[in-house]
Amino acid sequence: MRLTPEASGVFPIAPTPFMPDGAVDWNSADKLFEFYADIGSDGVTVLGIMGEAPKLEPEESVGLVKRAVAKMGGKPIIVGVSAPGFAAMRSLARQVMDLGAGGVMIAPPPSLRTDDQITGYYAQAVEAIGTDIPFVIQDYPLTLSVVMTPAVIRKIIQDNPSCVMLKHEDWPGLEKISALRKFEAEGSLRHVSIVTGNGGIFLDFEMERGVDGANTGYAFPELLIDVVRLSKAGKRDEAHDIFDAHLPLMRYEQQQGVGLAVRKYTMMKRGILAHNAQRKPGSALSAAAKAEVDYLLARLAKHDPRADI
Amino acid sequence: MRLTPEASGVFPIAPTPFMPDGAVDWNSADKLFEFYADIGSDGVTVLGIMGEAPKLEPEESVGLVKRAVAKMGGKPIIVGVSAPGFAAMRSLARQVMDLGAGGVMIAPPPSLRTDDQITGYYAQAVEAIGTDIPFVIQDYPLTLSVVMTPAVIRKIIQDNPSCVMLKHEDWPGLEKISALRKFEAEGSLRHVSIVTGNGGIFLDFEMERGVDGANTGYAFPELLIDVVRLSKAGKRDEAHDIFDAHLPLMRYEQQQGVGLAVRKYTMMKRGILAHNAQRKPGSALSAAAKAEVDYLLARLAKHDPRADI
Amino acid sequence: MRLTPEASGVFPIAPTPFMPDGAVDWNSADKLFEFYADIGSDGVTVLGIMGEAPKLEPEESVGLVKRAVAKMGGKPIIVGVSAPGFAAMRSLARQVMDLGAGGVMIAPPPSLRTDDQITGYYAQAVEAIGTDIPFVIQDYPLTLSVVMTPAVIRKIIQDNPSCVMLKHEDWPGLEKISALRKFEAEGSLRHVSIVTGNGGIFLDFEMERGVDGANTGYAFPELLIDVVRLSKAGKRDEAHDIFDAHLPLMRYEQQQGVGLAVRKYTMMKRGILAHNAQRKPGSALSAAAKAEVDYLLARLAKHDPRADI
Amino acid sequence: MRLTPEASGVFPIAPTPFMPDGAVDWNSADKLFEFYADIGSDGVTVLGIMGEAPKLEPEESVGLVKRAVAKMGGKPIIVGVSAPGFAAMRSLARQVMDLGAGGVMIAPPPSLRTDDQITGYYAQAVEAIGTDIPFVIQDYPLTLSVVMTPAVIRKIIQDNPSCVMLKHEDWPGLEKISALRKFEAEGSLRHVSIVTGNGGIFLDFEMERGVDGANTGYAFPELLIDVVRLSKAGKRDEAHDIFDAHLPLMRYEQQQGVGLAVRKYTMMKRGILAHNAQRKPGSALSAAAKAEVDYLLARLAKHDPRADI
Repeated sequence: MRLTPEASGVFPIAPTPFMPDGAVDWNSADKLFEFYADIGSDGVTVLGIMGEAPKLEPEESVGLVKRAVAKMGGKPIIVGVSAPGFAAMRSLARQVMDLGAGGVMIAPPPSLRTDDQITGYYAQAVEAIGTDIPFVIQDYPLTLSVVMTPAVIRKIIQDNPSCVMLKHEDWPGLEKISALRKFEAEGSLRHVSIVTGNGGIFLDFEMERGVDGANTGYAFPELLIDVVRLSKAGKRDEAHDIFDAHLPLMRYEQQQGVGLAVRKYTMMKRGILAHNAQRKPGSALSAAAKAEVDYLLARLAKHDPRADI
Repeated sequence: MRLTPEASGVFPIAPTPFMPDGAVDWNSADKLFEFYADIGSDGVTVLGIMGEAPKLEPEESVGLVKRAVAKMGGKPIIVGVSAPGFAAMRSLARQVMDLGAGGVMIAPPPSLRTDDQITGYYAQAVEAIGTDIPFVIQDYPLTLSVVMTPAVIRKIIQDNPSCVMLKHEDWPGLEKISALRKFEAEGSLRHVSIVTGNGGIFLDFEMERGVDGANTGYAFPELLIDVVRLSKAGKRDEAHDIFDAHLPLMRYEQQQGVGLAVRKYTMMKRGILAHNAQRKPGSALSAAAKAEVDYLLARLAKHDPRADI
Repeated sequence: MRLTPEASGVFPIAPTPFMPDGAVDWNSADKLFEFYADIGSDGVTVLGIMGEAPKLEPEESVGLVKRAVAKMGGKPIIVGVSAPGFAAMRSLARQVMDLGAGGVMIAPPPSLRTDDQITGYYAQAVEAIGTDIPFVIQDYPLTLSVVMTPAVIRKIIQDNPSCVMLKHEDWPGLEKISALRKFEAEGSLRHVSIVTGNGGIFLDFEMERGVDGANTGYAFPELLIDVVRLSKAGKRDEAHDIFDAHLPLMRYEQQQGVGLAVRKYTMMKRGILAHNAQRKPGSALSAAAKAEVDYLLARLAKHDPRADI
Repeated sequence: MRLTPEASGVFPIAPTPFMPDGAVDWNSADKLFEFYADIGSDGVTVLGIMGEAPKLEPEESVGLVKRAVAKMGGKPIIVGVSAPGFAAMRSLARQVMDLGAGGVMIAPPPSLRTDDQITGYYAQAVEAIGTDIPFVIQDYPLTLSVVMTPAVIRKIIQDNPSCVMLKHEDWPGLEKISALRKFEAEGSLRHVSIVTGNGGIFLDFEMERGVDGANTGYAFPELLIDVVRLSKAGKRDEAHDIFDAHLPLMRYEQQQGVGLAVRKYTMMKRGILAHNAQRKPGSALSAAAKAEVDYLLARLAKHDPRADI
């Protein structure tokens, strides 16, 4: 299904499962996408930064998209297509859309500085991939070192009708969400879906500021779905209760550089992945770190039986 | 009291209190340092990044140090002396030591890249301020964009006998702590105090990895003291229980850019500061953000009566 | 004399002369400013990046400004007042204006990214120093890593009537000059003086694109004056002839990090400075580098007798 | 021919010729490589930063390598294989070596900071591409923002026997060359070829400091060959004479961002390329800039008849 500006809910960032020898673990990939579908995800994002995309061969990237399309029951598949050049971006984007992807996600290259450079880059990217492909803006200054003001994001959205979603992971970002929703209320910005990243670590309040859901990873994507559902239902205290129970682990998983190792280790313990391997070069968890995750899981299990693993 | 390598415990980063018109609020400053002493802080850090130091006139900086010395009952006062040039660093360092400060904290300038540049910078800084002044290394890559390996930190410590403390706020940083303590166990690194920053957001596990305490800000420094005390006493679960109760607010306060506004607002609500003003240019909390902090405080009060404000 | 938007000509960036022991060499400072006046400079800039400003004690900074005012015969003295905080910027700016400076130069701090952050910073800086002090924008992305578009520069100029000059040292920058002059021709930008930096390495064509002169350092500021004079007189070939003769040395002096050492060594050989010392930490020329400069001077002397030293 | 540590001379960075519609101009590519062979180049580098490599489809990249191999008469072809992931780096490296390339060039990704990160990255890259492929280190801090000390370069060379060349374009870099050659003289560093970049703007002195030649672009690669030849023959003054004659144009072409447009325009005027087009997104020369290049060429023609075009 194609991604639309009305998209809402949780789109987990899928890690790419590997075998201990570095080969893609296709069985785990199938299982992973089935898991995402089963828990009620509204779509999934593959080939993101946390998907180890740059380590994949082209045929592996395509293979992952095919599996996601096959297993996610028609839910939109978002594919990260950020690349150092537009040739690679275009060919991947067109290829995955032909395979049934719902849209693509484009992050700005770290060299961009001025407002004009940023809006110009997105105009060129859209020209390169074609105006018929729904795309997601990734706004992630902490890692990409590109800072987009609300007005810059508005210009990208207004200039490019094929923009359907903003993946918002500025930090801090609550006021930015409010600013964008205010633009929309005032009529200066058309509606697009806003979903948030940063491992969900501010999802509790982001929902209250008006976002539509999450587009991020966490070893318990069910928690993201719970928070979105409860928040949409107006059950504020309940949303915060379950969120707070997970926060110690979410925070631990949100550590730059080792976060993916934490996530894969936990998902392996949960039985969703067969291995917690990363393709080289990747970081591994120390014994001390594994014990810390185990301790956090044991503590979490007192509040959420899904953590009793 | 002079800072020594055996320093241990909690050294809060003091915000600088201002009046709504931008003047330093000296009454609140007195009250603040009395508060830090009363709750059992082991010292205090003034003129840090969160102390709005670059906005202060020289006489105001000196005034703050005097108040801290007067009110902290002999506990060591750490003074941030980072400056774009060694002349300013030296004159501030020597002046505050004459006033009774316990040591100075030096952050590396953002332009440093190579290992040699970093160790060379600290050698020059020590030559500038004099080898008789105890100093603290500030290792804060997220904000300073200078990355120090454990081996670089070791070299700075081994080359400079006046280095007595590492303020560790790398992120992620747990393995770095373990690496440094392993150096010490192996005999390749003399003992210095390691205290952590990042608003305390990993203090629970940092203590378990072998740090001596915290050198950071949070609107409830008592929580930092609790965690350090319980952790040192081997009461692991209790330490995590109180830590986890505060984590939703700590996380909220740890947002870059608005964190200081959150901290001052909360400390004003607690009656420690008369105003939540920052000197210009500073960020202010939106009404939505204040309501979010109020909500977090109300939730926290269920676990910690000190938050019932 | 106060700096005005009609300022034109060459404003050399003055190096700060030091004794071998690191003390300011006041005799050389006097001689240096006399030299600048004698050769027909239209003003001078002190406490710039190449003036080793952050290494100076406050009273030394003030002393340099006093000497410049005393020796430059009423020509405008531009004083670099960039600082990490507005308190220091304001107090230095007001102090030097009281001493007879003509205006101040303000560089943006490296953390600025978005257009709004840049224009906001200048608005705050002007509020801090007062709207009565003429100021110069320093646009130097290579060193400061802040990128200002022509539209951002225009907004700063239009929003702040006390802006009188742009020190342009973007690289490449020829089209930026043309864009700004086009704004002025179209009526969307009031006239301010545009003078260029980068050690003069593009001054030949910058003049032809419409700048008013240079605000930069080079061991032969007479060359800058020659190029500006010949270019203004329409003597294009003559301007390029003398420029090209100096280019091998200018290029050598323009090396980041060691450029100041080259400049001071050459000015010492010329008898303008008594020593080529930099205050610590500073770079020194290797014997090989000195021999290279000597060789370049010998070659230059065939075209310009002033280099026969 | 495979690249060896004894490589010496000039290896021009080949621009990729395009038709005005953005297609690769294969005729011009053939002509370009024939030209490089005819003038006596010692090899050529394709798919470098100035080769617009990220804009090329995989089959186009391969096509360029094939043409270079076919036309360069057995001289070593160096292929830029820098990529955001090792999968892409490995597959391109192995493919081009099979086609007859002489070696590959690897630039560090901009995120690297510490010495260990840099040496670790090269170890991983060599593991990825295989230890049987000769490789070139690209040391280009100005663009890549990765700073390698001489000791770090030495470690990469000593740890990886397949390292055969350093493309040195640090700036300033003369002392770094001397430091590396001193390591070699002392016996702590095995010999590898050192060739320099930066558009040749310091080639005159780089030769005298001990490099083996140039690996860079300039619209008159014959000039680079002249300087290398004269310098190796000990004809110092003659080397500088021809170098200085070209310096005004070299400097103009060395402007970041527009340099490639200058180079292609000049090579088109020389009849080497049929068009001066860049594939989108690319910069174009303004009419003013073209006139400036024309003027520089006319002036150069008085010293070098090859510029009489």
